[in-house]
Amino acid sequence: MSKDKQFVTEITPQGEDFSRWYIDVIKKAELMDYSPVRGCIVFRPEGYEIWENIQRDLDRRFKETGHRNAYFPLFIPESFFQKEKEHVEGFNPELPWVTEAAGEKLEERLAIRPTSETMFGHMYAKWIQSYRDLPVLINQWANVVRWEKRTLPFLRTSEFLWQEGHTAHETEEEARQETMQMLEIYRDFVEEFLAIPVVMGQKTPSEKFAGAVDTYSIEAMMKDGRAVQAGTSHFMGTNFAVAFDIKYLDRSNNLQFAHTTSWGVSTRLIGAMIMVHGDDRGLALPPKVAPTQVIMIPIGPPKTREQVVGRVDELYRELKQAGIRVRVDDRADVSPGWKFNEYEMRGVPLRLELGPRDMENGQVVLVSRITGEKRIVAQDRLAEEVTSMLEEIQHDMFEKAKAFREENFKSLDTLDEMKAFLEDKRGFVEAGWCGSEACERQVKEETGATSRNIPFKPTAEKSSCLVCGDKAKHTVVFARAY
Amino acid sequence: MSKDKQFVTEITPQGEDFSRWYIDVIKKAELMDYSPVRGCIVFRPEGYEIWENIQRDLDRRFKETGHRNAYFPLFIPESFFQKEKEHVEGFNPELPWVTEAAGEKLEERLAIRPTSETMFGHMYAKWIQSYRDLPVLINQWANVVRWEKRTLPFLRTSEFLWQEGHTAHETEEEARQETMQMLEIYRDFVEEFLAIPVVMGQKTPSEKFAGAVDTYSIEAMMKDGRAVQAGTSHFMGTNFAVAFDIKYLDRSNNLQFAHTTSWGVSTRLIGAMIMVHGDDRGLALPPKVAPTQVIMIPIGPPKTREQVVGRVDELYRELKQAGIRVRVDDRADVSPGWKFNEYEMRGVPLRLELGPRDMENGQVVLVSRITGEKRIVAQDRLAEEVTSMLEEIQHDMFEKAKAFREENFKSLDTLDEMKAFLEDKRGFVEAGWCGSEACERQVKEETGATSRNIPFKPTAEKSSCLVCGDKAKHTVVFARAY
Repeated sequence: MSKDKQFVTEITPQGEDFSRWYIDVIKKAELMDYSPVRGCIVFRPEGYEIWENIQRDLDRRFKETGHRNAYFPLFIPESFFQKEKEHVEGFNPELPWVTEAAGEKLEERLAIRPTSETMFGHMYAKWIQSYRDLPVLINQWANVVRWEKRTLPFLRTSEFLWQEGHTAHETEEEARQETMQMLEIYRDFVEEFLAIPVVMGQKTPSEKFAGAVDTYSIEAMMKDGRAVQAGTSHFMGTNFAVAFDIKYLDRSNNLQFAHTTSWGVSTRLIGAMIMVHGDDRGLALPPKVAPTQVIMIPIGPPKTREQVVGRVDELYRELKQAGIRVRVDDRADVSPGWKFNEYEMRGVPLRLELGPRDMENGQVVLVSRITGEKRIVAQDRLAEEVTSMLEEIQHDMFEKAKAFREENFKSLDTLDEMKAFLEDKRGFVEAGWCGSEACERQVKEETGATSRNIPFKPTAEKSSCLVCGDKAKHTVVFARAY
Repeated sequence: MSKDKQFVTEITPQGEDFSRWYIDVIKKAELMDYSPVRGCIVFRPEGYEIWENIQRDLDRRFKETGHRNAYFPLFIPESFFQKEKEHVEGFNPELPWVTEAAGEKLEERLAIRPTSETMFGHMYAKWIQSYRDLPVLINQWANVVRWEKRTLPFLRTSEFLWQEGHTAHETEEEARQETMQMLEIYRDFVEEFLAIPVVMGQKTPSEKFAGAVDTYSIEAMMKDGRAVQAGTSHFMGTNFAVAFDIKYLDRSNNLQFAHTTSWGVSTRLIGAMIMVHGDDRGLALPPKVAPTQVIMIPIGPPKTREQVVGRVDELYRELKQAGIRVRVDDRADVSPGWKFNEYEMRGVPLRLELGPRDMENGQVVLVSRITGEKRIVAQDRLAEEVTSMLEEIQHDMFEKAKAFREENFKSLDTLDEMKAFLEDKRGFVEAGWCGSEACERQVKEETGATSRNIPFKPTAEKSSCLVCGDKAKHTVVFARAY
């Protein structure tokens, strides 16, 4: 038992130091490792497979709504950044530059893309001539780079993986519909697949994307009460179309600028998922995204081992056949207790135990990573039982995260109340805002919290600004954010 | 009809200028476009979807053989290239360098990865301690950059997409087995999925990968007789393990260097596939890789249009249900004849026509892109008929490509014979080789052909070197190559 104990204590408790807990867990579960390049991580197989599962599900949703994937160059000529003024100001401080190649100095510096926004703009101008060419609905899965000063694995790294959708439309209405459709896809995906409840809303002008007319986001609450922006969708109006000359002949033969959108999520979703569901025992992965949904562990004395392992293998094949992501750990030199801790730490949602007595009774024991609930089920109904228990776990995880968010979400009226609340505990604060940047800045300076978004469905509409007391223009959600 | 004619003549005939034919086809079929960055292309949706189909099938094969995906940083510190001497010499002339980031000059220049070989090596040294950690079987799907002077879309671009597998093993034998297993996966994939027959064999020392002990390749013949190296698999011995200090404690508690392999294919497969199967009418895509396998075109006069389109939609849903990648082109303002040409040019393997008479007879017309064969089939057996015709087309394409290769493949004895053959027509030449670099170089200088590989199954074992006449050490396949 001393080994088991030692095992657990290698993870810093969340209550002691949440950041250290996070690093301990992702290193120990082998999701990532630091690389020799500043601010860049290695996504190890256990971490990358989470991303592959995210990709597969999102990609299906994108394609079902008519989008296709493409791939644009990694390099962006320096001149491209000059074309959209807000865009250059937004990204210039974060760009790495290629200045030499194949032994020669380049005539024009090339940035490593922080987003392919400008490259899409340039190509769309070539491809779009007539309203018949619209809409153009293209997504890209790619690596992008933003040279970050302070990095945190998954949540903020200099290189990260993401998808960026860029669409062009005839009318503002269509482009706005697209913007909202993609935001809703993100909400549904993050809530259904990652079991993370989010606040959906519009960014305030100071927080919107460089070059957008309107930016919308979904915001998730981590277990330390801080926010992670889990996805954004932007209505660009004609800003990029004007900057890149994306024009089309409309149905009356007049030349018009297209209306464009863009939308993206990134590998920071992995970090968010860990910070929402993990606990002092380690990771906790929602079944839909878990690389391993069920870990099978044979138990019992050496003399029955062969028989038990044989039966485990049969059941393994049945579960695999049923489309369940299942693994067996039948190592003889590691104790079951050690394995239980190991897979709890790795966040495997369901553990299956099979011993000699279970063999006799034609049953297995299923144990939930989340609730600890043990369920004894018949082997001949195994696939159904496992499937339904995985569904319950997925559901439970969402409800648990939602309850946590509700506990740490407060609708308040004044900056003083907000300061008191955030001093006591961390969380989200909903409050009225007059619309002035000065008041927004004052909230940030005095509390460290930024406006996350103007929620579509506030819990209560506020009538006065929490800072100046003037009439509230919007009800805003504020939080400290990653 | 004049429009149809004009359409076809926009593609340069292969016999007139094969390179221009290639560019015409890939641009017109919207597979790619040139980007404003030298040597980098944009993969448009029609081209990128081919890559997605390639990825999906290969990825399945990799996973079935126990490999997992991971993601390593884009940037490689300059010092890494110094560690393996042949490797630095092989890649240094092609590297782009990041020298500045976020407004500051970097202390150490960062290369954009030409391969992640060195980064894998560095991380493997950290992850591998004991024989229990072996084998490590990791693959990466990523973009890589090699600054090329002369580029050709898909076949040679400065940035390209690929996968690179890197594995580490206890013994040489295991590593050699892995090297061969992956080569065989590539052969099977390229022949079965892309319908491209290949010559499998070992590279001569002068053509092997920078840092490898042995390199193996599969080589495909394009319609102009030139070769494309379609995939490579490398046995590294302990070269990279020594360079990066990848050591493990063996079963007797002795410290040993691991044996490593690497293997990769890239987006050049797309170019090869086009050059193997395309013709003067345009692309010809094997059904397994085609983004659209069946194009459905309603025909007949306006008065029956609504009825015909309605039936086409029903059949569309049936085919889709059966897992067939199918599209409908029911545009009313474009003639069927124009559409026929359009989708032949785009390489869609099967066309389905439905007119009023077919409606009456409960039938449809299926037309093969490859043979032009028309088949009238019953609507109530449509999915089976389409599936079997697609299988036949896949098979026919492979056989056709194989017949072409056999016609243009010659087993010869002397350099003079080879010169005469290559003057007359292009193709592959099989000949004896003494093993000296001088003779290999002379072949290249006098014919422009390089040794492609030493085939595992030569059509005939040769006894003397085609250049010096000395005893042949190997039978080698030579060809001009892309």
